[in-house]
Amino acid sequence: MKHARPLPNYLLQRYHGWKATSFAENRSWYRKLADEGQRPRAMVISCCDSRVHVTSIFGADSGEFFIHRNIANLVPPYEPDGDHHGTSAAVEYAVTVLKVSHLLVLGHSQCGGVKGCLDMCKGDAPELEVKESFVGRWMDILKPKYDKVADLPDNVAQERALEKEAVLTSLDNLMSFPFVEERVASGELGLHGLWTDIGEGGLQVYDPARGEFLAV
Amino acid sequence: MKHARPLPNYLLQRYHGWKATSFAENRSWYRKLADEGQRPRAMVISCCDSRVHVTSIFGADSGEFFIHRNIANLVPPYEPDGDHHGTSAAVEYAVTVLKVSHLLVLGHSQCGGVKGCLDMCKGDAPELEVKESFVGRWMDILKPKYDKVADLPDNVAQERALEKEAVLTSLDNLMSFPFVEERVASGELGLHGLWTDIGEGGLQVYDPARGEFLAV
Amino acid sequence: MKHARPLPNYLLQRYHGWKATSFAENRSWYRKLADEGQRPRAMVISCCDSRVHVTSIFGADSGEFFIHRNIANLVPPYEPDGDHHGTSAAVEYAVTVLKVSHLLVLGHSQCGGVKGCLDMCKGDAPELEVKESFVGRWMDILKPKYDKVADLPDNVAQERALEKEAVLTSLDNLMSFPFVEERVASGELGLHGLWTDIGEGGLQVYDPARGEFLAV
Amino acid sequence: MKHARPLPNYLLQRYHGWKATSFAENRSWYRKLADEGQRPRAMVISCCDSRVHVTSIFGADSGEFFIHRNIANLVPPYEPDGDHHGTSAAVEYAVTVLKVSHLLVLGHSQCGGVKGCLDMCKGDAPELEVKESFVGRWMDILKPKYDKVADLPDNVAQERALEKEAVLTSLDNLMSFPFVEERVASGELGLHGLWTDIGEGGLQVYDPARGEFLAV
Repeated sequence: MKHARPLPNYLLQRYHGWKATSFAENRSWYRKLADEGQRPRAMVISCCDSRVHVTSIFGADSGEFFIHRNIANLVPPYEPDGDHHGTSAAVEYAVTVLKVSHLLVLGHSQCGGVKGCLDMCKGDAPELEVKESFVGRWMDILKPKYDKVADLPDNVAQERALEKEAVLTSLDNLMSFPFVEERVASGELGLHGLWTDIGEGGLQVYDPARGEFLAV
Repeated sequence: MKHARPLPNYLLQRYHGWKATSFAENRSWYRKLADEGQRPRAMVISCCDSRVHVTSIFGADSGEFFIHRNIANLVPPYEPDGDHHGTSAAVEYAVTVLKVSHLLVLGHSQCGGVKGCLDMCKGDAPELEVKESFVGRWMDILKPKYDKVADLPDNVAQERALEKEAVLTSLDNLMSFPFVEERVASGELGLHGLWTDIGEGGLQVYDPARGEFLAV
Repeated sequence: MKHARPLPNYLLQRYHGWKATSFAENRSWYRKLADEGQRPRAMVISCCDSRVHVTSIFGADSGEFFIHRNIANLVPPYEPDGDHHGTSAAVEYAVTVLKVSHLLVLGHSQCGGVKGCLDMCKGDAPELEVKESFVGRWMDILKPKYDKVADLPDNVAQERALEKEAVLTSLDNLMSFPFVEERVASGELGLHGLWTDIGEGGLQVYDPARGEFLAV
Repeated sequence: MKHARPLPNYLLQRYHGWKATSFAENRSWYRKLADEGQRPRAMVISCCDSRVHVTSIFGADSGEFFIHRNIANLVPPYEPDGDHHGTSAAVEYAVTVLKVSHLLVLGHSQCGGVKGCLDMCKGDAPELEVKESFVGRWMDILKPKYDKVADLPDNVAQERALEKEAVLTSLDNLMSFPFVEERVASGELGLHGLWTDIGEGGLQVYDPARGEFLAV
C-alpha cells in the first residue's frame, strides 16, 4: 500500500488533545472496555451524513451503541447468497453475537441518498440508473416506496416522506432476517424507527398504532 | 411496520437535554448545515464497535466527517455487478458527489470481526464458514491476509497484525475503484491508514516508506 | 484532596441537559423542596445494585422516598455502642427526625452480596471469611439464615430464598430498634418486605399471615 | 416477621403502571442485565435525602451506576476490625468485585445530617452527643472539619462549606482503603468530588488545582 499519506496536521493536533484530556480522564474505563469487551445495549443504523451524530443526540457513553452507518440508513432484505453484505453482517453480529436489546434505525432530513433516489425515480438522474452506479443500485432498495410519495405536492414534501419510508423499509427488511424476526417475536429485541430534522434538531418516532412518525 | 416500539425513556430524556443545550447553543450552525448541505473535508471508514468514536478522537464538529461504519472497517474490491454494495455506495458518494479531500480507514484493537476471521482461518469457527453467515462472508474479504500473520507467535500478536492488515486491505481495495484511483493519482484525494488501541488510547498511522504502522 | 479528577464529559453534557429540561420545568418544586425541607412519606432500604431503581418501579417524585442503599439491603441489629453505624443512623434519622410513615425493605434477584454469603456458608469463598473483608463481615448479618435454605435442591433456589431471608432479617433487626418498635406498636410506622425479580420485573410482598412472599 | 404490612395501594398501582410501560418496553434489557450481571461504569456515594437523585441528574440508564446512599454521603476511614461496616463493604464490592472505573461522591445543599453535625459542634444538639445517637456517632466522621468552617460569618455559609467538607472527608477516607489507594495510583480508578444545590439545580466539581469546588 504505497499510496497512504501522513495524517493532516490539524487532526494530529486534535488527537493529542483528546489523548491528554478526555482519554486521560477516562483511561480506566477505556482499559476496562478493552479488557472485558463491549456490551452495548443497542445497535443504531444511521446515515453516513456528517451532520448526523447519534451519540451526541442521545448523550451516549463510549461502549453504549454499536453503530452501523451507510447511505440513507438502509437495510437490504435477507439474502444469504454467499456474497459480501456489509449491512447484514453488522446486523447479524449485533443481534446474534452481542445480543443487543434494541435496534434503532435513524433517518434524517436533507438526506442526499434519498434525494438521489427521488431524482432517479423521476427520471432526473440517469447517472444513477447505470449498472455501475453503486449509489443508484443501493438506493434501489428504497425505490419501490416512490409510489407512496409521488402524489405529494412538492419535492420537499416528497423528500421528507421518502426519508421516513427509508426507515420503514429498513425495519421491514430487518424483519426478513430470521434471527431478528424470532427475537422480536420473543420480546428479546425491540425495533425502533426514528427520524431527525437536522436544522430544527427535532426527533420523531414511528408509532405503529397511528401509522406515522410523531414528534417526541 | 407494526413491530416498532417507543423509545426507551432514558434516551428520550437525554434527547430533550441535548436539544435544550448542545443544539440550542449551535442552532444557527445546524440551520446552516441543513440549508446549505454538508461539505465534509474527509470520509472516515471505521468499525461499528461501540468503543470506537472517531469524532471524539479527532474532536470533530458536526459536518466535518462523512462516516461509514461496518464490521472491521473493510472495503470490498470494486465490483460493479448491479447488486447492492453499501460500502462501495458510501465511498462513491463521498468521492464523486461530496468530493472529500481525505479518505481515512481506521482500524482498532480487540476487533471482534477480525478475531472471527482469524478463528475461521484456523478452523475454529465453523459457524462462520457456512454460506448463510453474513459475518463470515464479509470477513472473506480479509481472509487472504491470514498468510501474512500465521507465523506470529501467539493469538494476540496475530489479532493485532490482522487488524492492521484489514486497514491495508481496505486501502488496496479502495485503489481498485476507478474514481478513487484517478483522484489519488491527481492528488485530489489522500488515503490514510490508521489503527487505534482502545485500552491505551494509542494511534498509529501507516507509513508506506517504512511499510509499517507507526505511533504518532 | 489532591486526587480528585474532573467529571467525564458525557456526564457533564447529560447534567447540562437535565438542568435545561427536567430541572427547568420543575424549578418551583425544587425551590420549594430546598426552602421548606424534605417531607418523605417513606424510607426505602434497598441494594446498591445498579439494576435496582426503586424510584422507577414506584414512579417516585423528587422528595417522596428517603433512600438508604447498601449491599444486600441489610439492617444490622440495634447496637448503640458508640461506633459508626451508617445504616442505623439512616433509620434513626428517617424514623425520629423525618417521621416517615412507611419503612420498605426491597430485596432483589441476582444479588451479588447474597450470593457471596451463600458461597461463604458453603466454604466456597475463603476470601470473604478473613477479618479484613468488609463484604464478608457485612454478610455475617445474614449468615445465620443459611440453615433455612441449605436443604433447597440447587444454588438458584437457595439464592432466591436467601435473598428473601435478607429482607426478613432486616425487618426483624429493625424491630430491635426501640424507636422503630414503639412506632410500629402504636401504628405510626408500617414495615413492608418486598422482593423484585430483575429479569421479569416481578414484585413480591411478604405476607405475615401466609409466612411467605406473594406476587402482587 | 409478623409485623410486615401490605403495600400501600398507591404504590401498588404505580408498580403495575411501571410494569406495563417502562418495563414492558425494555424487557429484553432487564432480561440481559439479570442474565449477564451488572457492569456499572461508576459507583456513586450520595445522601439518603429524598431530594437528591443522581440517576436523574446524569440521565443514567439501568445498570450504569452502583449507588450507595447514607446520611451525608460519608465514608468512614478504613477500619478492618471485623465489625459490620456497610459503607466500607459497598466500596469494597464496587472496587474489587465490580472494578468500577469511577468513584463519585455527591454532596448536596440543605443536608440535614451536616446541619446536625454543625449544631452538635456548636453545642446546640445535645441529643446527638449521647452515645446512643446513631446519627450523632455517624456525623462524628465529619466533626473534625468544623474548625475549617467555624469562622464563616453565618450558619448558612457554614452549612454549605461543611457539606463540601463532607465530600472531601469521604474522598480522603476513601484513600485510606488500600484497594482504593493502589487503583487510584495506577490510574485504574478515578475519584470525583461533587456537590449539588437542590433549589438551583447547580452542580459543582472539586478542582484540586484550585483547592475549591467550581460550578460546571
